[in-house]
Amino acid sequence: MGDLAGELDDLVARLYPICRSITGDGVRRTLAIIGEHVPLQVHEVPSGTKVLDWEVPDEWNIADAYLADGDGRRLVDFAACNLHVLNYSVPIDVELSLDELRPHLFSLPDQPDRIPYRTSYYDRNWGLCLPDRQLRSLPEGRYRVRIDSTLQPGHLTYGEVVVPGRTQDEILVSSHICHPSLCDDNLSGIAVSVALARRLLDGPPPRHTVRFLYAPGTIGAITWLARNRETAGRIVHGLTLTCLGDDHPFTYKRTVGGTAAIDRAAAHVLAHDAVDNQVIDFFPYGYDERQYNSPGFRLPVGSLMRGRHGQFPEYHTSGDDLSFVSGARMAHSLDVLAAIIAVVDADRRLVNTEPYGEPQLGRRGLYGAVGGQNLPDGQLAMLWVLNLCDGEHSLLDIAERAGLPFEVVRATSALLEEHGLLIAPVG
Amino acid sequence: MGDLAGELDDLVARLYPICRSITGDGVRRTLAIIGEHVPLQVHEVPSGTKVLDWEVPDEWNIADAYLADGDGRRLVDFAACNLHVLNYSVPIDVELSLDELRPHLFSLPDQPDRIPYRTSYYDRNWGLCLPDRQLRSLPEGRYRVRIDSTLQPGHLTYGEVVVPGRTQDEILVSSHICHPSLCDDNLSGIAVSVALARRLLDGPPPRHTVRFLYAPGTIGAITWLARNRETAGRIVHGLTLTCLGDDHPFTYKRTVGGTAAIDRAAAHVLAHDAVDNQVIDFFPYGYDERQYNSPGFRLPVGSLMRGRHGQFPEYHTSGDDLSFVSGARMAHSLDVLAAIIAVVDADRRLVNTEPYGEPQLGRRGLYGAVGGQNLPDGQLAMLWVLNLCDGEHSLLDIAERAGLPFEVVRATSALLEEHGLLIAPVG
Amino acid sequence: MGDLAGELDDLVARLYPICRSITGDGVRRTLAIIGEHVPLQVHEVPSGTKVLDWEVPDEWNIADAYLADGDGRRLVDFAACNLHVLNYSVPIDVELSLDELRPHLFSLPDQPDRIPYRTSYYDRNWGLCLPDRQLRSLPEGRYRVRIDSTLQPGHLTYGEVVVPGRTQDEILVSSHICHPSLCDDNLSGIAVSVALARRLLDGPPPRHTVRFLYAPGTIGAITWLARNRETAGRIVHGLTLTCLGDDHPFTYKRTVGGTAAIDRAAAHVLAHDAVDNQVIDFFPYGYDERQYNSPGFRLPVGSLMRGRHGQFPEYHTSGDDLSFVSGARMAHSLDVLAAIIAVVDADRRLVNTEPYGEPQLGRRGLYGAVGGQNLPDGQLAMLWVLNLCDGEHSLLDIAERAGLPFEVVRATSALLEEHGLLIAPVG
Repeated sequence: MGDLAGELDDLVARLYPICRSITGDGVRRTLAIIGEHVPLQVHEVPSGTKVLDWEVPDEWNIADAYLADGDGRRLVDFAACNLHVLNYSVPIDVELSLDELRPHLFSLPDQPDRIPYRTSYYDRNWGLCLPDRQLRSLPEGRYRVRIDSTLQPGHLTYGEVVVPGRTQDEILVSSHICHPSLCDDNLSGIAVSVALARRLLDGPPPRHTVRFLYAPGTIGAITWLARNRETAGRIVHGLTLTCLGDDHPFTYKRTVGGTAAIDRAAAHVLAHDAVDNQVIDFFPYGYDERQYNSPGFRLPVGSLMRGRHGQFPEYHTSGDDLSFVSGARMAHSLDVLAAIIAVVDADRRLVNTEPYGEPQLGRRGLYGAVGGQNLPDGQLAMLWVLNLCDGEHSLLDIAERAGLPFEVVRATSALLEEHGLLIAPVG
Repeated sequence: MGDLAGELDDLVARLYPICRSITGDGVRRTLAIIGEHVPLQVHEVPSGTKVLDWEVPDEWNIADAYLADGDGRRLVDFAACNLHVLNYSVPIDVELSLDELRPHLFSLPDQPDRIPYRTSYYDRNWGLCLPDRQLRSLPEGRYRVRIDSTLQPGHLTYGEVVVPGRTQDEILVSSHICHPSLCDDNLSGIAVSVALARRLLDGPPPRHTVRFLYAPGTIGAITWLARNRETAGRIVHGLTLTCLGDDHPFTYKRTVGGTAAIDRAAAHVLAHDAVDNQVIDFFPYGYDERQYNSPGFRLPVGSLMRGRHGQFPEYHTSGDDLSFVSGARMAHSLDVLAAIIAVVDADRRLVNTEPYGEPQLGRRGLYGAVGGQNLPDGQLAMLWVLNLCDGEHSLLDIAERAGLPFEVVRATSALLEEHGLLIAPVG
Repeated sequence: MGDLAGELDDLVARLYPICRSITGDGVRRTLAIIGEHVPLQVHEVPSGTKVLDWEVPDEWNIADAYLADGDGRRLVDFAACNLHVLNYSVPIDVELSLDELRPHLFSLPDQPDRIPYRTSYYDRNWGLCLPDRQLRSLPEGRYRVRIDSTLQPGHLTYGEVVVPGRTQDEILVSSHICHPSLCDDNLSGIAVSVALARRLLDGPPPRHTVRFLYAPGTIGAITWLARNRETAGRIVHGLTLTCLGDDHPFTYKRTVGGTAAIDRAAAHVLAHDAVDNQVIDFFPYGYDERQYNSPGFRLPVGSLMRGRHGQFPEYHTSGDDLSFVSGARMAHSLDVLAAIIAVVDADRRLVNTEPYGEPQLGRRGLYGAVGGQNLPDGQLAMLWVLNLCDGEHSLLDIAERAGLPFEVVRATSALLEEHGLLIAPVG
């Protein structure tokens, strides 16, 4: 765990300085670093490609940006923090008065020392983001703004890692990669996702194929859905990951249906791990769970996070920096995530082969010999599994009904399967 | 609202002195006054007509009634208050002792200064109602009772107003008109009903045809059902109205099924209007909702009231007089009623025409340009409507799920429909 | 009730001294005494018979057992209390040291003055049970153990009483009879069961055939199920009985499905009788409800008790003696049991013959004559029954919906049936 936490911290620290957006070289550099850890397939989709109701936009890249005063002193400098530029700003080099400048300056009056994160992807615009305290101190006078960006036909880039499973049914783990220097949102989600992919690749093949998607928010998910429309139905469980490094309690946001296996698995793991958590209903805002849960797809994709987007002051500000996340917390998030995935991967229906009365456990060595006392927990778990393995209850159903951790039910079912008392139904 | 409250007060005041019953000229005079406000179709059904399991009774009319002492002094006088006579009393002119008289005198020991309202429609009887204090002060002696009534073959009378809608599906608004000088029960219900009919007639045609029924309680509803048995199934939503002028919190009583659209609409409006209210389950007593909800019809008719029948001391006593109701409260009741009717009338299922992912709202001018901030409420409403307009959720379903007022969801859906993002499904 | 309580006390007292087990003469003597009260059919099933996944074991009988010290003094004596012997101990006559003896001695460190009840049915073993205080006081030295038992091919014995009903559908009342001198568990269950059988035999025939089973726990129920596999499906309601004489609140344990008629009837009776009670979910441990509710049978058999097995200190110890139970409490248990059986026996669906509107109760003499007042309870019950007798609601459904005791609804329905307003649907 010490090592893992350190590796997660290292990955976040390495990705932190890169200026990402929904397209461009920042995304490519991010995917290249991910690709050092896991076998990543990178896709490039040309600008102008129709994707569902959308179109892949021109590609944005940026070399430099600043606001200078009449003396040429840089007051706001992209080189110091890439949040200073309105993401997707068109190139500009202009001198103007403070009044002319104001509509292009963004700040947070409530958090006067933090730089806000702002974007203008689909409305061509330019702007600079700065602490409100600095904005309010700007004197009248002439200013120069130079944004050395390009916005022209190119590509949208995303990456996928596929962990082959024993079946074609898929679990999707989706993380957005479009935010610039913001750690919790979403370098933490990326790092935890990469660590899970690595762990699954290094272990025995899961039952489900597990697909890890690293794509820019909204347009990336829409592009992936458009290009995989025919096969998206293979996704039987899914999660979006974000904000997994802060120190808030865990939050699980349900699928739109609210009763999917992933919803029940997440609630089960969070409850049995006794971590402080909240499970909230779906709402059609947040991250790419919006797209996966749209009425045309209705893929059962929930969302795992700690702090909720928009609910903590550091969100989408320069306060979401390296000090805001911790490797230990990301490692804990990884454990919770892995446990949820393990539940949906292992959950299945088994059938009792001796359903008439209880089978005689004693002669199979599965039962204590001296009767008349209270029953040990393990034997009660056996009785639960035998009673409910009737073809109608899955292992998770049984765990919920019996109030037992899923892992106890799974291990018990494996023991009974070994003794021939349970079988997987055909078909 | 000032005017409306005054008009409601005026209508109640005009109807108050009339001695109504389940048949007779009091009903006819009441319907004539209603007919001055709205185009009323009046029906006369002969005594002896078989109606479902019942028979239209003989018609009752009354000119005078009194109890006089040995000196001929009128102690109880119908002319002072029509509650003094047991409604449907047969004619009588008799002298008798106090002991002989007692079984025919009705009072309220718990409310010694109020006259009770009592009826004997189907058992031929006669009687007088008086304050208990007066009853207890009657000295021994001879008394004369004269009731100058007639009870003979005639008609049962009821009236209907139909507001034509764009479809034949009907909303029923039913008010009982059989009570004599009692204001809350049910001149308030009559007045609010008439005001809603007037409002709907003066506005654009609703989707549903709205039928307003003014009929005597029980036998009137049964008569209407008997005569409209074939077409009663057109009623898809309905309400009985009573006690809408008192100062108790609103009460909505559900249909027998408990989950009808009218039940959900009423609960929604009462909750979102943040008026003090209670929503109670159906029980087979009260007013004509009993008949509409009977097993042979099961019309989804709820009941809207403020004070609950039988639950306040003025109920069915001379305390339910003009001072017990107010035009302002009736006007508020009208607003609540109109909002409930508006919900069931406007509720429908629409289908998202771009169901794969979210449609790009920005290029349609439906979305704020600068991202990264929290979402305004109106845009969240759009996302809710787009996500849930999948053919399975109605606008009310969406309002309930999103925690939004129905009107916000309806207006949002209209905007999206204008932009071609929603359509009404065929058939 | 005084008599009944006394009779219940007497039956328990007579059965108390007998050393029962899952086979043997103790069971036969117990059944013989039951057979003095009710017409009992006794079945003998040979050892070695295959029953579901089990096999009928060899028959066990015992004449004497003791632990003696070096001087031949009996320290532990079966003649004083049959709990002293590990039930199903193989015969033995041996001298050995205290250390050699220890693995065969059973005590309760937490209750040092009580003898525990222990069994070893399927693992051949021998042992003695004694108070922990006595165990700890045994000095080093040589001891003699003699257990004068037999364990050899014979039979398993159980008994049945059938109360013929008007239909072949059955109610099962099952009591385990395998425990030696323990009063609450389960002489109380046996005594209450016998009293109910007697009462039903002496009354008019119930609608359901009621089958009373007296069989050893687990293997007895399994044997019965094996021999009645084809007809077990006739059981539409059932209860196991245990611990009905102690002074704990009533406990009803649901069937595995949790929504069976017996579950609803038991909850209804316990709630309306306002006795202190708890209704708990099924779990696959306890008594023979485990076998009846197994996935191959899924017979809806709940469990009625006062104290819960394993939840009170006297359970399965010598503390469960004659002073621990009372005839008055058993008589109360009988009343509750009989009421539950009466509900499932009488519950049925009736259909309103005048479903269009309310029938006119007045002309049938079913309604108070003077209107305008609140409705008496009995008339409200009529309106509930008429409204809900639509072919979809049973009398218990109506009682639950109306918040009325089942018996009120049943009596009301009988009255309405007499007046031709309700009929039983054909088929």
